This record gives sequence, C-alpha cells and structure tokens, in this order.
Amino acid sequence: MFFFTTGIGSSPDQDAVSAYRPIAARMLKKGLNDLGAFQYLKSLTALGPRLTGSPQAAAAVEFIYQKMKDLDLDNVHLEPTTVGHWVRGKKENGRIISSSYGSFPLHITAIGGSIATPPLGITGPVIEVRSFAELKKLGTNAEGAIIFFNRPMNPGILNTFQAYGMAVNQRIMGASQAAKFGAAAVLVRSLTTRLDNNPHTGMMSYIPGIQKIPAACISTKDAELLSALLRKDDSLQINFTQNCKNLTPVISHNVVGEITGSEQSHEIILVGGHLDSWDLGTGAHDDGAGCMHALEALRLIKTLGLKPKRTIRAVMFMDEEFGGTGGRDYPRSELRKNEIHLAAIESDSGGFLPLGFNVGRKNMYKKFKKWESLFRRIGLYSIGPNGGGADIGPLSAGGTLLINLIPNSQRYFDVHHSALDVLDAVNPRELELGAVAVGLFAYVLAQDYPGSPSR
Amino acid sequence: MFFFTTGIGSSPDQDAVSAYRPIAARMLKKGLNDLGAFQYLKSLTALGPRLTGSPQAAAAVEFIYQKMKDLDLDNVHLEPTTVGHWVRGKKENGRIISSSYGSFPLHITAIGGSIATPPLGITGPVIEVRSFAELKKLGTNAEGAIIFFNRPMNPGILNTFQAYGMAVNQRIMGASQAAKFGAAAVLVRSLTTRLDNNPHTGMMSYIPGIQKIPAACISTKDAELLSALLRKDDSLQINFTQNCKNLTPVISHNVVGEITGSEQSHEIILVGGHLDSWDLGTGAHDDGAGCMHALEALRLIKTLGLKPKRTIRAVMFMDEEFGGTGGRDYPRSELRKNEIHLAAIESDSGGFLPLGFNVGRKNMYKKFKKWESLFRRIGLYSIGPNGGGADIGPLSAGGTLLINLIPNSQRYFDVHHSALDVLDAVNPRELELGAVAVGLFAYVLAQDYPGSPSR
Repeated sequence: MFFFTTGIGSSPDQDAVSAYRPIAARMLKKGLNDLGAFQYLKSLTALGPRLTGSPQAAAAVEFIYQKMKDLDLDNVHLEPTTVGHWVRGKKENGRIISSSYGSFPLHITAIGGSIATPPLGITGPVIEVRSFAELKKLGTNAEGAIIFFNRPMNPGILNTFQAYGMAVNQRIMGASQAAKFGAAAVLVRSLTTRLDNNPHTGMMSYIPGIQKIPAACISTKDAELLSALLRKDDSLQINFTQNCKNLTPVISHNVVGEITGSEQSHEIILVGGHLDSWDLGTGAHDDGAGCMHALEALRLIKTLGLKPKRTIRAVMFMDEEFGGTGGRDYPRSELRKNEIHLAAIESDSGGFLPLGFNVGRKNMYKKFKKWESLFRRIGLYSIGPNGGGADIGPLSAGGTLLINLIPNSQRYFDVHHSALDVLDAVNPRELELGAVAVGLFAYVLAQDYPGSPSR
Repeated sequence: MFFFTTGIGSSPDQDAVSAYRPIAARMLKKGLNDLGAFQYLKSLTALGPRLTGSPQAAAAVEFIYQKMKDLDLDNVHLEPTTVGHWVRGKKENGRIISSSYGSFPLHITAIGGSIATPPLGITGPVIEVRSFAELKKLGTNAEGAIIFFNRPMNPGILNTFQAYGMAVNQRIMGASQAAKFGAAAVLVRSLTTRLDNNPHTGMMSYIPGIQKIPAACISTKDAELLSALLRKDDSLQINFTQNCKNLTPVISHNVVGEITGSEQSHEIILVGGHLDSWDLGTGAHDDGAGCMHALEALRLIKTLGLKPKRTIRAVMFMDEEFGGTGGRDYPRSELRKNEIHLAAIESDSGGFLPLGFNVGRKNMYKKFKKWESLFRRIGLYSIGPNGGGADIGPLSAGGTLLINLIPNSQRYFDVHHSALDVLDAVNPRELELGAVAVGLFAYVLAQDYPGSPSR
C-alpha cells in the first residue's frame, strides 16, 4: 500500500508518515474553509443548556441523531442509559450580613446534586477554611456553621487542568466532609483563576450515611470579599436559599454513528465527547466542542471521500457531568459483543487551539511519536503520555488505547461550568482545528494501527 | 559556572539547558501569579489609540518612560524619531445606491495615509476585481470608476499571517495601481477571515508621480453584499466620504530601558515591540501586547533578582504602522557607537498563546533547537527558522540575530487594525506567557549566547 513505499535516504517510518501529508492538507483546507464544527455547535447551543435528564438534553440527542443521518453515516442509533435528573430550581440567592459593614448580595449557584435549603434559606455564621485538614481542626466549632471553602485554583501552574484537579475536592466532597463536623451548609469558591462575578457550578457527591447539607458556589470576587470581611468581622452571617431538587432518574441515550471500515469493520476507532452540559451557559466548550470535533471529523472524512479500512465511530456520551453513566454503559452493551475497540479519542477539554494528544499509558505514546511531524502540518506540536478521559475510561479494561486531545488550557476555566460557556467564547478556526486533528488521527489509526490484532 | 556542570549520562548541551529549569520555573510562577503584562496593558490601552503622531502616542511614550523608571531600569531614555502624522477626521461614511435594490450603508474606514474625498464625497460606478492582473484587463473601463478589491484572505491556510501576506497588496498598493487606469477611488475588502461588520484599516502607499486617489476599507460582510449586488445590478453606484488628512511630520520617540549587563555590558540582547497603533481600537494586541511582553520580561528578570551578564534592553519602537521610522532610526543613532547588538527579539504578532520562536536566517535556528526542551516547560513548542520583524529588521545589516515570538495566529486577524483590538480581546494568562517566553529567551541569550565575540 502507498504508505509503505520507501524513499531514498528516509526511514520506512517517516515514509509512512509522509504519505499522509496530502490527506492532512486536504482535511485542513476543507475544514478551515467550511468551519463545519462551528456551524454544528451554533445549532447545538441554540437548543439551550443540556443538563442531564433535561428536555434540552433530549433535544440534543435528537439533533445529533438527525445530523448523523443527514451525513449518511452508517449504523446510526441510540443506546439507552439511565441518568440522574437534578433540577436547579428558580430560587438561588445569598447575602452577607455584617452588623458593622452592611449587607452584600452574593453571586451564588447551587452545586450540581446538592439538596435545597429550607424555603427561607439557611442563615449562619461563616468559617473559612482552605483544606479538609483545616476543617478537621475546627472540630466542634464547625457545628451549625456555614463552612466556606476558599482554596483558589493555583494560578502559578501552567496547565490549568492540573490546578483544577488540586482544588476540585472542595466542591465535590466539601459538603460531606463539613457535615461530619455538624456544619449546616457549605459555600465553595468558584473554580477559575479569573476574578469576576460568575459563579461556576459542577458536580458534588454526598457520602452515604452522612447528613446531606446544602452546597453552593460563589464567584471568586465574592470569595475575596467574604474573606476580607471575615477578617474584619468574624461574627458576620450568611443567608442563602436554593430550591434545587433531585428527581427520579430518567432514560436518556448515547448517540452513535460511524463510517464502517472497508476491511476490518469490527475493529473500531472511537471518537467522542459528551453531549450533556451544565445549565448556566450552553456547554459550548464543555463539551459541545468535543462532540462537534467528533461529528465534524466524520464529516471531513466522509466528504473527502476517504475510505477507512477500520470503522471510525463517533459516540456522543450522555451524562459525563452527572455520574458518567453513558461512558459506563457503552462498553457493557450487548452491541459490543463482536466489536474490538482498538483506540478511543476523547475530546473534553474545550474547543481552544489544539496543541497535541495524550496517548495511552506509560510509554505507549512513543509508538506514535513519529506522527508528530504530520500533526505539525495541521498546527499540533506534541504527542505525549497519559491518554484518558472520563467517558472512554471504562473501555480501558478491554484493552482499548485511550487518547485525548489537548487544547490550549489557558482560557478553559474562565468559562467552565459558568454562564460564560457559550458560543461567543468559541473561535471557529480553533474549534475546527480540533476537528481536523481528531479526524486525521482517527483516520491514521484506522489505516495504520500499530500492532493491531489483524496485522 | 553552574550551567557548565556535566551530569552522568547526559550531554553538556542538555546540562546547560537543564540548569535553566529552576529559573524558567520561577519566571513562570511569578508571571502567572502577578499577570503584570496585563496590568501594564490595561493602563496603556486606557490612554486611547496610539496613532503615530497623535497626543495619545505621546502620552504612551511618557507612560512607558515612567514605568521603566518605576522599575528602576538602567539607562532609561527617549530617542527621537520623526514620524508621519495622518489624522482620520470625523467624517467617514459610505453607501451603496442601486436603483433596483435600494440603498445600503457601508461599514467603511479610510486606509491609513489615504487622501480625503471631496467634502461631498465621491460617487461612481463600481468594478470588482480580485487581483492587479484583473485590474489591468479593465484598461480604460476603469476610468472614473471606484475599483473594489475583493480578494479575501484565504481561510484555508493554517498560518493567518501567510494568508494576510497574500492579500495585503490590495490595501497597500491598490490605490496607485487603480489610479494608473484612471480610477476615481478604491474600496478594499477588510483583511480578516471573519465575516462581520468591522472595517479593518492599515497602511497604504502612493507611488510617486501617480495621481493620488482616496482609498477605504469596507467590512467583509459589506464586501460580500456589494459583490452579490453587483452580480444583479452592475450599474449600482457607491458614494463615500472621508476627510482624513496628512499633516506635517512630528518628532516622537523610541523608549529605551535596560538591565545593564554585569560582565559584557556593551553586548546587547534587545527585546521589543512597537508602541504606536491604529486608531479604531486601542492596539491591545497590535502591538500593546508586544510592548508589554518586553516590559514585563524585564520586570520579571529584575524582580527575580537575576543578574544578566550581557545587557538586556527593552525598546518600544515608534511608528511601525506608519513608515517604520523608529526601527530605521534606532541602529543609526550615535548612541549605538560602542554597542554590539547580538540578538533582537521582536514581539509583534499579538498577545495570544505563545507557541515558539523563529530564529535567524537559514539554519541559524538549529543552534538554538536544544533550548526547545526548556521552553516546553513554559508551554512553548517550537524553535524554527526565519526570525525577523519590521522594527528589528534594520539591525540585521549589523549582524544582529533576529528572533520573533510566534503566538497562536488563529484569532489575530479577527481583531487586527479594527475596533475589536481592545483589552477585552486579550487573555491575561496567554499574554503573560509571552512575556515569560521573551524574558527567558533574553536571559538565556544574555548568559549563554553561542559563538559571541566575547567568548
């Protein structure tokens, strides 16, 4: 086959890579001319926020299904998954009340999965902590208090996902940790390095057997204000109200469509993102971008007339934000019986300029390092270790190679899980380059997966 | 010295590189925590647009001078340069008039350096062309017409600067080329891949001896509209008015400040950008960002207590946009007599995520390739060939190594020379990373310039 031709003075490896250059060039040109990913995203975000279990999430399932049909993809279908159904409610407000300094409204939002406050809200004194260790030291002093978790994302870290990872336990586990010590509620500083008035929501978990208490996030500016006021008046109180609710789980769907492989059709290269989103914005970056990367990747492959030998399948997972049931149920489905998932590429880090891919565990990425020179032609620089993703993670047990796209992370947490995560925050060219990258890698893997069972 | 220590099993080259890791880490952390470049840029852009010769440009000179003094830089001074003084005037409007389809207002702006129209404007038929070759074919048909240059920036090209380069001759030379054939005026499609209502200005030149005719840019949406209408009604007319004016040149200044080298102080590593800007926005990216990269780079080096062996000098050049007199006069100054400019790093491609550097002519960059692993630690990926820049270009004749920062180019022409080039379009972290990159490279060069005269 053409990519095994060996030229004079170059390695077979680099010849294999060079042979894909014309395809990379065509994908890039077609993508940047059409900007198809942005067109898709515009329509998707127009449906509204896609909170798991919501009517908008259901509409998004239908929308993607229809778009896959319109593209004449193969094997387009829905796969059921039972998802949580939490609703925010319409009441969400809070206030700092200081007898010395006055009253200040808070930019506040319930954390996903939290229980409501009583109808008239919770009022109580506030204790600021920066860690669970500090919380523990409070002991019985925490009783009846509102615990304020105020550990910021460390701005000094280059990779903002790493900084997020170092701060997110406050939001996820803060309520149950504080409830252990008798706290009445928790407030958490929003997870962003920006200083602004947008609260950022996200997921939380209650530990079974521990009293459930309400949890909310406040904006970073409010967190700074509250912290400063507490230093001057430690007897200030906070009152906040939210009427969010956990409803009965509902059936939703992963959406699947593919270009069936011309030779080894049972061997699958999966590309995907998650279709659900948080509800404050419209999930343009998280993870509308990742879904559109996958959909546009298949559109590019299809419209360029490429015929992958293995199957390239797009999966839009449901419920990444609220429990990951879509990602968990996908590998368990009966439909997987005669399928081999060689590799899965997840895009769930936003639609910003793509810089590279993380590939597999340990040293697996070295097998793919040779492709860097190809990806440079479409603007990506790096193939590195530690590929993975929330939705594709469960495939790992079956031996699937996990890969994730790495976009520029500098702006992601400016918008993440907040009202700012909307179409306007997405640059059409940057988004498209992600789709080109996903499409090119999927195609290369479909043609040339190293050490595959069938070769 | 510490960076010559050789470890077991690694090359002296890589040891030299590794020795800078702690410095890179400190610069990164300090930069991302302080976000100093953005603070500077906020103050600079608050002065207004810095059009060459304007009071705001003069205010910017004073502002930078003061900031350099505040930073306790060495040898802070102004170097005079005589710059053009063109003013836009307050009247700028245009209209498509079609007897069949009605009248449509244009989003229009004079091209920098253009003459005015008569007070009541120019009215005439319109002929659309996409190249000077097409214009030539018109011959005498062009007489009295308004020539509409409508060749878009090619969106299919990854590097938007390259696409810009392929379209910009319409704006720079279009007027004189059209005047050769007796045209009354020219309209040029704005140079951006976006489709919107923002006209983008920029520089133009009249060829001596050829009749000067007015030139303006219209928004890309208007260009599309005009082109579509022309296909339906080729007798439509355009009327447009502008009262811009070329005034007498004025004396302005390059602003210079440095950290004088502790050992070879006459050997200079220059970092810089241009202080003047276009007038529709506030030149936040072009080139406020480049100036702040340089200023913040020196702040970081200074506040971290680093003592460069060679001099690291920041130069804010005046008049890049309008003739490049600052860059031309800098090497000619008497002050250069006993100075050797080893290298100059220009940042004039915006304040977006920095991806790498272009270094020197031909294969010079290979000498610096080893530093890529260091720059990866602050998020940059690439050291490549063909370094240069409008302001540092004139230093090349004296043997200076030319280097330029390469930021992500995908968003640059969305804002370039338009009303969108304002502070809001700048991400503080991305901007800061550019300053860290410039600072780190300047410091490495100051300590370790390869093959310098003094080693």
